[in-house]
Amino acid sequence: MTKTLPPWRPILSRALHRNRSLPNARYFQLATVNLQGNPANRTVVFRGFFNPGNQLQIITDSRSEKINHINNYFASEICWYFPKTREQFRITGNLTIIDENHENQTSRLTVWQNLSNSAKQQFTWPHPGQTLTENEQDFFQEIPSRNQPLSNFILLLFNPKKVDHLELRGNPHQRTFYYLDNNQNWMTQAVNP
Amino acid sequence: MTKTLPPWRPILSRALHRNRSLPNARYFQLATVNLQGNPANRTVVFRGFFNPGNQLQIITDSRSEKINHINNYFASEICWYFPKTREQFRITGNLTIIDENHENQTSRLTVWQNLSNSAKQQFTWPHPGQTLTENEQDFFQEIPSRNQPLSNFILLLFNPKKVDHLELRGNPHQRTFYYLDNNQNWMTQAVNP
Repeated sequence: MTKTLPPWRPILSRALHRNRSLPNARYFQLATVNLQGNPANRTVVFRGFFNPGNQLQIITDSRSEKINHINNYFASEICWYFPKTREQFRITGNLTIIDENHENQTSRLTVWQNLSNSAKQQFTWPHPGQTLTENEQDFFQEIPSRNQPLSNFILLLFNPKKVDHLELRGNPHQRTFYYLDNNQNWMTQAVNP
Repeated sequence: MTKTLPPWRPILSRALHRNRSLPNARYFQLATVNLQGNPANRTVVFRGFFNPGNQLQIITDSRSEKINHINNYFASEICWYFPKTREQFRITGNLTIIDENHENQTSRLTVWQNLSNSAKQQFTWPHPGQTLTENEQDFFQEIPSRNQPLSNFILLLFNPKKVDHLELRGNPHQRTFYYLDNNQNWMTQAVNP
């Protein structure tokens, strides 16, 4: 079955292309809700789309706090600002955790293999967020094997339900909502900025 | 009474200074929780610190969805990434709404007066997020008076409780927590990145 791309995909691809000279154009902010019901927000790196589909790939460490948040409640919102073209995508959706016990390891392995050595090595570092380790050597362990992701390496899949695209260039600004209807078809609506 | 600055204030000022060539270094992402308990996330502009104090000033429109979120639950988290120096501040805190009925109008008026004409004019635009108005003239109304903020102009004050500062330059990364102890004094803790 051939599925057509959602209408926001080419718009997002265009933004990525036009901002490709900026490394931070591949960073976005991921909001979750913690166990007390409070919002949490951090910068993560876009690791491409899961294939096939429209899920955005993110990586994290199983020892990171956001894993507790996501295990408790999977709702999330991405805020992705592109400085060069002055446009923002707010993407509302849900997160799925692909850990070492997940039945489908193909994407987890592929994303791991595409990491730089220094990114791989960060998964050997001591427990993030705990009091700074006294032994600096803990940060200089061997580079992990390319073919075996470390057990604390997690692939997150972000499944979009709604996209709110705002373009600040021009007067007035332009704003478009993309959302799934009851038949899971993507709808497009021009709205006031 | 003289209060000393919290230890994270000079660190944040240094980041603002070193990234001053980038207009988007004054933008950050503000996460709130909506009425369904789901996270929401959007880019806002830093409008300086409330004086006196450590509250970050943000502006918004009373018709914007985030006002409903904040009225329902005031907890929030800022994620502020500085591209040039590759450092991130996650600031956990609470939001206060200063609307036209608030007893203290001084800061609301000052922030309004410092807005550009085009920023002032945006508060005359039709209801944000509703179906795009058919009459384009609705976006080209008279520039509002400098001395009288429009009634839908809102000043938000973000009151920090905790700051998580991550520096990606260097190997390993550096990470520091700043938090208020029971006596409302700011404490500093070096943690694993």
